[in-house]
Amino acid sequence: MDHLRPTRGRSGDNASHSHDAPGSRGRRDFLKGGLVFAGAAAGTSLQAHAATLAVPESNKEMGREMELKSYGMPSKYEAHVTRNRSDVLVNKQKWSDWSMTPLQDQIGIVTPNGLIYERHHAGVPDIDPAKHLLVVHGMVKQPMKFTMDDILRLPAVSKFHFMECSGNGLTDWKTPKSTTVQQSHGLLSCGQWTGVPLSWLLDRAGLAEGAKWLLFEGADGSAHARSIPVEKAMNDTLLVYGLNGEMLRPENGYPLRAFIPGWEGNVSVKWLRRIKVSDKPWHLRSETARYTDPMPEGKWRQFSMVMEAKSVITKPSGGMKLKYGPGPYEIEGFAWSGKGTITHVDVTTDGGKTWQPAKLEEPVLDRCLTRFRYLWNWDGGPAKIASRAVDSTGYVQPTVADIAKVRALSGFVQHHNAIFPWLVAPSGEVTNGIA
Amino acid sequence: MDHLRPTRGRSGDNASHSHDAPGSRGRRDFLKGGLVFAGAAAGTSLQAHAATLAVPESNKEMGREMELKSYGMPSKYEAHVTRNRSDVLVNKQKWSDWSMTPLQDQIGIVTPNGLIYERHHAGVPDIDPAKHLLVVHGMVKQPMKFTMDDILRLPAVSKFHFMECSGNGLTDWKTPKSTTVQQSHGLLSCGQWTGVPLSWLLDRAGLAEGAKWLLFEGADGSAHARSIPVEKAMNDTLLVYGLNGEMLRPENGYPLRAFIPGWEGNVSVKWLRRIKVSDKPWHLRSETARYTDPMPEGKWRQFSMVMEAKSVITKPSGGMKLKYGPGPYEIEGFAWSGKGTITHVDVTTDGGKTWQPAKLEEPVLDRCLTRFRYLWNWDGGPAKIASRAVDSTGYVQPTVADIAKVRALSGFVQHHNAIFPWLVAPSGEVTNGIA
Repeated sequence: MDHLRPTRGRSGDNASHSHDAPGSRGRRDFLKGGLVFAGAAAGTSLQAHAATLAVPESNKEMGREMELKSYGMPSKYEAHVTRNRSDVLVNKQKWSDWSMTPLQDQIGIVTPNGLIYERHHAGVPDIDPAKHLLVVHGMVKQPMKFTMDDILRLPAVSKFHFMECSGNGLTDWKTPKSTTVQQSHGLLSCGQWTGVPLSWLLDRAGLAEGAKWLLFEGADGSAHARSIPVEKAMNDTLLVYGLNGEMLRPENGYPLRAFIPGWEGNVSVKWLRRIKVSDKPWHLRSETARYTDPMPEGKWRQFSMVMEAKSVITKPSGGMKLKYGPGPYEIEGFAWSGKGTITHVDVTTDGGKTWQPAKLEEPVLDRCLTRFRYLWNWDGGPAKIASRAVDSTGYVQPTVADIAKVRALSGFVQHHNAIFPWLVAPSGEVTNGIA
Repeated sequence: MDHLRPTRGRSGDNASHSHDAPGSRGRRDFLKGGLVFAGAAAGTSLQAHAATLAVPESNKEMGREMELKSYGMPSKYEAHVTRNRSDVLVNKQKWSDWSMTPLQDQIGIVTPNGLIYERHHAGVPDIDPAKHLLVVHGMVKQPMKFTMDDILRLPAVSKFHFMECSGNGLTDWKTPKSTTVQQSHGLLSCGQWTGVPLSWLLDRAGLAEGAKWLLFEGADGSAHARSIPVEKAMNDTLLVYGLNGEMLRPENGYPLRAFIPGWEGNVSVKWLRRIKVSDKPWHLRSETARYTDPMPEGKWRQFSMVMEAKSVITKPSGGMKLKYGPGPYEIEGFAWSGKGTITHVDVTTDGGKTWQPAKLEEPVLDRCLTRFRYLWNWDGGPAKIASRAVDSTGYVQPTVADIAKVRALSGFVQHHNAIFPWLVAPSGEVTNGIA
């Protein structure tokens, strides 16, 4: 990826932001103009109507009966779409593990609740919301406890945000280990989170003078905990109970979790039962042995919790095949930033020699997945495709080489937000291009 | 509802559009100022830490093991949240029926796929996507057939839109039949739909001169069909295969359906297998005996397919109880319009004598559910609460009396978009207030 250097400005034209309305000329030209979906690519011409208009069996019989009360499930023909435990880093036990979202199958920006990625340290606890308590104590003027009823009574806010594990991509820094984007990038999900600003509860308890850090502790078997700066907690941290229209699923923190927009997932402590206020961080194992960044000269960086701008092509991606031979294909993927909105995404199909602006699909929201789309006319030769995101702070998604200049890339390295390439072979087969 | 007359202008101030950021003064004042959540309402003060900080059982044991591949489900404590068949209009058979979305439980604007409302005429067909065909024929230059592979190969678009059945609310025009908002308004759902503009396929086939109407026909046992104007089809009609991040559920049209933004749900034909082009509409049973509007002097209005602006309070709503006595409660609900965006929503708590602007929660999107919120200090007396939406065309949600002036309200009357009140009794119990 020698040519993956940022070239700012060129892609800043309005075209990269414009919303491509159905029926607009741009897309229709794609179908009708030089870059056409000819022949079978967009359907088959019919000479004889009779055969193809044969009435299908499903028109001749009654379908499945309706149930009195129901909660629907995907089609049996979609049973392959699941979140999967890692097949690169295989854990022999089943409690401290993770499962990845099938990004290659995700349509739109909302991750279905059944497919939100998981990271548990001691399995999924079974918590009765009628018995769950959240306690706020430590350096506060008045220690408080909150039932779920207390929290549900408060005015609520709903916000679309991504969530990403700091370890997303750690298997694929220098050598191609993952075969699919689910494995390489699937510790990433997105949805509309609903809850209450934590500031309201901290206002109720009253922060004592000198309060600087909070402890978030979960009610799971690992008592997973993290130290959170008071400033962030008061600014935009939520206590959430809902995701994508319904109460959280058990594996996502039911009935209550923290949610810190734009920060690594592990600080958004699930099954939240306790917030303790202090004047200093706790330096927990999750802040010393884990979730830290190796730096040059043997040093380690702590509390690097913001997720920087990142993007990845999800289609085509590892394990897929361009099955129609040379011709037009839509490249699509996700871009996101923990610091703001995505302002543009560039796509290369020649390993970084040249970059072209992708279209960003509305709505483009703060610290949320943004879908980008780029129309590519594949010439049938070998190709190296990748995307590069820029966010509203002006930050440009780096290369692995860029990151290697400022951090040490040894061991289990977190915070892999580098440009990620896929290789397209003349056969159409797509494989991991990191190297 | 004598006082439910629109009073334009007053509510047009910017305040009704402002986004209420977490930690903003407005909401925090609600908690700290005159309208406070005192005492138990927002938690309980702790005198003795020891008891309340007792470690819960879930902290002392390993949780549920992780599965190799999984598709998650809601908590067992949320098993009451289901879509339900009607308990007012009870069908004795189980094929031509409908089930309603539990709006009283919906958090945010995304309806979970398992809870999207259903309306089937002959049950849910089982369609293998590998065998499904869409045929475009009739007044076209070249009849075409499309496999799902053909359609999935095309560039895609994703858009957030509501879908509402034209019959939503037909049990509750003049007398209070429904006991919950699920029953009165639950033929309403919202999500991000993914597919391709129909215009692209019609361009491929080429409309013959004089083409004015399309037939959409489904592959279900009823062969449900509707006549659609070519102009609408070319403008913004989609052929969708995805909803909220994944392929459509079987009951929502898997593997392919029409989606016409802002129009009544029954024109968005599910399990779409055929589009025939003609110079006139078909006048099907769904366009003569059903889905038509009775008008004065025994006339009937056909093809009134746009869903006008509407809103409803979902919390508190029928069957709920204001269980904390007099004091602050957040009123929330949905507003939507088939003609554009919602520009403001007013709320009354005195049966329409006075109206106050509600806050609209971002994102406020075109032809999409918009959540509104209003902070109410209940004095403990009887109250009649309702919401009134205004859309970007300036249209104001009418009263039943307004509608009765221009239409006849007898029989199964479709298109009930009137202001809908709930009664709050001194006991805190909430009941249907239409009368």
